[in-house]
Amino acid sequence: MSSSSLKDFPLSLKTMYDLAEFVIRSVELIKPEQVEKMVNTLEDFYVNNRNGKVLVMGAGRSGLVGRAFAMRLLHLGYNAYVLGETIVPAVGKNDLAIAISGSGRTKLILTAAEAAKETKSTLVAITSYADSPLGKIADVVVEVPGRTKYSQFEDYFARQIIGITEPLAPLGTLFEDTTQMFLDGIVAELMLRLKKSEEDLRMIHANIEL
Amino acid sequence: MSSSSLKDFPLSLKTMYDLAEFVIRSVELIKPEQVEKMVNTLEDFYVNNRNGKVLVMGAGRSGLVGRAFAMRLLHLGYNAYVLGETIVPAVGKNDLAIAISGSGRTKLILTAAEAAKETKSTLVAITSYADSPLGKIADVVVEVPGRTKYSQFEDYFARQIIGITEPLAPLGTLFEDTTQMFLDGIVAELMLRLKKSEEDLRMIHANIEL
Amino acid sequence: MSSSSLKDFPLSLKTMYDLAEFVIRSVELIKPEQVEKMVNTLEDFYVNNRNGKVLVMGAGRSGLVGRAFAMRLLHLGYNAYVLGETIVPAVGKNDLAIAISGSGRTKLILTAAEAAKETKSTLVAITSYADSPLGKIADVVVEVPGRTKYSQFEDYFARQIIGITEPLAPLGTLFEDTTQMFLDGIVAELMLRLKKSEEDLRMIHANIEL
Amino acid sequence: MSSSSLKDFPLSLKTMYDLAEFVIRSVELIKPEQVEKMVNTLEDFYVNNRNGKVLVMGAGRSGLVGRAFAMRLLHLGYNAYVLGETIVPAVGKNDLAIAISGSGRTKLILTAAEAAKETKSTLVAITSYADSPLGKIADVVVEVPGRTKYSQFEDYFARQIIGITEPLAPLGTLFEDTTQMFLDGIVAELMLRLKKSEEDLRMIHANIEL
Repeated sequence: MSSSSLKDFPLSLKTMYDLAEFVIRSVELIKPEQVEKMVNTLEDFYVNNRNGKVLVMGAGRSGLVGRAFAMRLLHLGYNAYVLGETIVPAVGKNDLAIAISGSGRTKLILTAAEAAKETKSTLVAITSYADSPLGKIADVVVEVPGRTKYSQFEDYFARQIIGITEPLAPLGTLFEDTTQMFLDGIVAELMLRLKKSEEDLRMIHANIEL
Repeated sequence: MSSSSLKDFPLSLKTMYDLAEFVIRSVELIKPEQVEKMVNTLEDFYVNNRNGKVLVMGAGRSGLVGRAFAMRLLHLGYNAYVLGETIVPAVGKNDLAIAISGSGRTKLILTAAEAAKETKSTLVAITSYADSPLGKIADVVVEVPGRTKYSQFEDYFARQIIGITEPLAPLGTLFEDTTQMFLDGIVAELMLRLKKSEEDLRMIHANIEL
Repeated sequence: MSSSSLKDFPLSLKTMYDLAEFVIRSVELIKPEQVEKMVNTLEDFYVNNRNGKVLVMGAGRSGLVGRAFAMRLLHLGYNAYVLGETIVPAVGKNDLAIAISGSGRTKLILTAAEAAKETKSTLVAITSYADSPLGKIADVVVEVPGRTKYSQFEDYFARQIIGITEPLAPLGTLFEDTTQMFLDGIVAELMLRLKKSEEDLRMIHANIEL
Repeated sequence: MSSSSLKDFPLSLKTMYDLAEFVIRSVELIKPEQVEKMVNTLEDFYVNNRNGKVLVMGAGRSGLVGRAFAMRLLHLGYNAYVLGETIVPAVGKNDLAIAISGSGRTKLILTAAEAAKETKSTLVAITSYADSPLGKIADVVVEVPGRTKYSQFEDYFARQIIGITEPLAPLGTLFEDTTQMFLDGIVAELMLRLKKSEEDLRMIHANIEL
């Protein structure tokens, strides 16, 4: 399907197409060596540190993306936790903190990341800016594109397709949706490396759901 | 970029590419008339029912996708709520319930949807199956593809691209990620119809965040 | 201080006094042998089943009381979880489910409790009615008084003190506040039995808080 | 019932008794004029500012106490929200923020309270210390006793009753449980002032619960 065949589609479906296109371009922009380092860290953590805890941290919609990832980490067998939930244990030098912030400047996530570093936890940052305050203090950084950084896309998005100047992927949408798929890619690679089948995941999946 | 140029990429990025590809195909599979009906319902609700409440309902990762959508509904000016949070008001005949369930059979979401229908709320269902129990009781249904339904894709996904039989988009991943982008498309169209700029959304966005 | 010395106090403080009085009477009504069985179960679980999980379940304000208890269980060293949060693992025969429902009939908690029983988890019920559907399926029941059961109290509360017929501890307030204190009593006894000092609890308390 | 009649009771029930006793003493220690100001503020807000929002803020178990109060504010007809949940709107000069922190120094609640003040929201603080950083910036303060402040109680609690030096109401327990009952007292007084019956509350109570 090409973008032109969408001309009679509702704007919602065109935007959905554009968001997915943005993710596809992002695949080329994300640095494989950064990804490799993140996956190695998680694999090594699983294999050599079975009692270690993984604490996922994000605010707003980035926090929801983090929760979706934390669920899969739990299904993979990690001791995963989410900052802001009821059950958040203390973390320390054998633990891993994963902070998600497009700008790398979200105040409370930065505060939490600094606190994690103080406890000697390993810090992984998912952000659009490696040189942001969050990116700078992280042990492992993966740069995931968001809107601000890629103004060419903004032009394309705004003018070619929609013909207006208003961005229709408001606020952090591009970063959030791209990160969601990026992290689901990480889950896939961890499944392979840790030799986990879908059935293994299902076994740990909550069997009492509200 | 074509899929073949990905051959040296980490599996995580290949999977990310595949997930985005799945969303792009889904754009063609989603029925425009169903989408139109959903957007019309939301637009009409905003314009003619300013005190009405929108209650978003989903379990597990579908619930997180629902929360991300509810946040944007709030930013657009709706009185949005999320089932399972602390603050959930009673709903009734002037209210709207939006239920998200890939299978359309998630027990507790089905129970909640039935309860919503009993209160005379309008029920919108996002599901892969219009003929599921959830789809059947809904006033508005949008079918969003997920894995189970598209076994051809499973083959393609498993064999052509990844060369293994293990599904690397485990459990509800395909439905969840596709629905996330679909709902962000809905947000874009509502922005246009309700004449809301990104700045308008930012004004309602939480200014105190934890 | 006697109740009469409160006569010039704001109604809010008088009610606070009445709520605490209700808790004090409840201490005599709660059956020590039920409490003993609950504490023994938790102590034995801690000592002999270090990898076992404790899943706390409650709806609405009873759910919040459950969360407050789950936090302390975490601080005591249990692998505690809360139904409805992001991170909820599967439970099974070596695990413990604690269900809180004043009426013992809250539909979704009953459903969850039945699911827990099916997984062979041990079920502890905190309810005002041992003969409720929840009480009947539980392995351990502790009856904690709430309003409905003690109509004498309603009279006293309504007429003697406040002089009106409207109950000023609406809905489940009495059960919720009494259960909160009862469970904090359980925490105290577990501290002693498991030889945990306040400092031990503080060590596990979240060191990164949002 | 006197405390001595408890001698054969399990420690959990003795502690429950002590916690309730602490609440009863607290009733005398809480300043009626502070309470009056808080209730007046809430009554006036309800009557003259029907579109205003109330944002409740607290960390850890104090956050749970805040949520329980926010639920009742919703049931009373307020537009109540909880910091940290998915649905948190922007607040401004016509809105009310209620911050709960025993020490009045919990970093993130203090940050949030300062942010609320910057938006010109009215700030109500529930804390054990009127002269804490939180207490100082609040428009309305109610001092609710907690442990640290009342070392006499610690002595009594530790020596007379339990005969050990270990505090059995660890961390913030006393403040949290006392605040829970204090706020339920506020709910009772608001019911009377706003002429709300229990049935009125029930009408707004969630009719779809997960």
